[in-house]
Amino acid sequence: MKTVFSSKHKYHSPAREILCGQVTDYFEKPERAELVLEAVKARNFGEVVEPEAVSFAPVTEIHDPAYIDFLRTAYEHWQADGHQGDVFASAYNVQHPGAEAPRCAEGRVGFYTADGSVPITKTSWNAIENSALTALTGQKLIAGGERAAFALCRPPGHHATRAVASGYCFINNAAAAAQAFINDGAGRVAVLDIDYHHGNGTQDIFYSRKDVLFVSIHADPADEYPYFRGHSHEKGEGEGEGFTVNYALPLGTDFTRYTAALEDALTAVTDYAPDALVISLGVDTYKLDPISQFKLESENYKHIGKAIAGANCPTLFVMEGGYAIGDVGTNVANVLSGFLEA
Amino acid sequence: MKTVFSSKHKYHSPAREILCGQVTDYFEKPERAELVLEAVKARNFGEVVEPEAVSFAPVTEIHDPAYIDFLRTAYEHWQADGHQGDVFASAYNVQHPGAEAPRCAEGRVGFYTADGSVPITKTSWNAIENSALTALTGQKLIAGGERAAFALCRPPGHHATRAVASGYCFINNAAAAAQAFINDGAGRVAVLDIDYHHGNGTQDIFYSRKDVLFVSIHADPADEYPYFRGHSHEKGEGEGEGFTVNYALPLGTDFTRYTAALEDALTAVTDYAPDALVISLGVDTYKLDPISQFKLESENYKHIGKAIAGANCPTLFVMEGGYAIGDVGTNVANVLSGFLEA
Repeated sequence: MKTVFSSKHKYHSPAREILCGQVTDYFEKPERAELVLEAVKARNFGEVVEPEAVSFAPVTEIHDPAYIDFLRTAYEHWQADGHQGDVFASAYNVQHPGAEAPRCAEGRVGFYTADGSVPITKTSWNAIENSALTALTGQKLIAGGERAAFALCRPPGHHATRAVASGYCFINNAAAAAQAFINDGAGRVAVLDIDYHHGNGTQDIFYSRKDVLFVSIHADPADEYPYFRGHSHEKGEGEGEGFTVNYALPLGTDFTRYTAALEDALTAVTDYAPDALVISLGVDTYKLDPISQFKLESENYKHIGKAIAGANCPTLFVMEGGYAIGDVGTNVANVLSGFLEA
Repeated sequence: MKTVFSSKHKYHSPAREILCGQVTDYFEKPERAELVLEAVKARNFGEVVEPEAVSFAPVTEIHDPAYIDFLRTAYEHWQADGHQGDVFASAYNVQHPGAEAPRCAEGRVGFYTADGSVPITKTSWNAIENSALTALTGQKLIAGGERAAFALCRPPGHHATRAVASGYCFINNAAAAAQAFINDGAGRVAVLDIDYHHGNGTQDIFYSRKDVLFVSIHADPADEYPYFRGHSHEKGEGEGEGFTVNYALPLGTDFTRYTAALEDALTAVTDYAPDALVISLGVDTYKLDPISQFKLESENYKHIGKAIAGANCPTLFVMEGGYAIGDVGTNVANVLSGFLEA
């Protein structure tokens, strides 16, 4: 199994974020990707390849093109308006659905972002674009006949909705890859999101579509980020009704409880009989994760990989969260080895 | 003309806010109200009276009662969840209209607030409740026969929507007073908002009603807070269509340009023939205001007061913004003396 990776991810490295009302160091650190790369290389899963200049069209199909323009130009605009430091919102569009995008930089960042975890630095766009190309290159490997690939994306993507960045996410890499499969002729694509946090961006993008099944196992949003989506009663709408499946598990969930949801989720995936499977691969379900509250052990990730292999489907793994620096590499590599050894 | 005031406003005094991506001192300082009080006393406009324990019903009619419960209990909940410092949101509900209120404190503050200017301290609720009672007591003075009254409210209110705090505002004092006039038998109430920033909260609360006319003169939201409402094409909806009137003026507006909008706005008010007039009185249109960009001089505020008197209507002035500490008292007192001497 090939891994797609480029060190360009380092272009996104803000100094700080705001979490629980406090200014803190940025949890979504560049080291995360480097440590995962190291672990993947150590296991000899296969070649590590650079992302290629594949078509960016899936990105502007799943996102509002004006939002992508915002991401590309935000820093320059912020500077031109006389603001200091990274692009960072203070005033968000919580109250006014249907509002038009403001003209000034400060207004635009509150229109196109939702929280204190997505500062945009001078070089962030290079990493954001690279991360999307990483996922899209992984998709092309599978469209070209490979059984599986690992897109070692950074920044992650699954919280990014059609026109709003949040939760360390800017472009929704997994959703772009799913769209690319559709564009390449797949009739049905499934996205299984096993990050600790609900993939509200991916759900939002495909909520009224039946050609992409979205299945997510995550912490109950009543108690955990992203707070405003991810309840079990959210099942899709219109043509997409029944094609969103959420497992909202309580804080403190251990692997016994988790694995029951995983089996159920994989049954939903196999019943759908997708032409391709995209895994939003977060390992922040780990017991030592600094911002999460599930209780999975490193060994459990092998079982998760093995269970995913049981779906017997061409599978693209797309890196999402996981913030326990000491073990993030081992946990990701365990998922992949469980999958490959199944 | 009586002024309603209580020193309880001092219970709300957060140390910091986030503005333009930077952590700064809190601009909406307690000194603001004290300096306005001093200037009002120096001009001998009339007695200064304490707010009374009048009915709070108008507040829970214009706001979601669950939101008021949030304001009342947020600090306690924040502490119970183990968070530090003032209640302060990091993750806002930008993307997901129709979401349900989360259970945890961190989720709730992102559901019920919209920006970095509304931290809730241990004692904030006392000031917030007091500010609403200040406006409602002023309304009772007028309902009881007075020609005019000045509710020296702090914190201000006009950005607070039905269920979201923002822009230093928690309870919408002016909207509560307007509702109280309706409850006391007024058929039509006009709110004229002359704060530099659009009164998006007041607009939102009355947008589909015809018994309250909302007229606002403010900086163009394409370039200025609150960014997402206040365009001239917003005119109300349903039964309220035509009962919202916005004058969105460019940054750098001076009194020549301003006074043309004011005359027009007052024509809209007198055409409506309201039984009572509520003025959302901000003086951040002042040339030295530290966070605003209009060019009004202190003398101009007398003309504004005189023009308002020309509407010839029972008038309640409700204090909103104005952050040029050195001149905020003079500017407010100039509006009131212009009104009284007309």
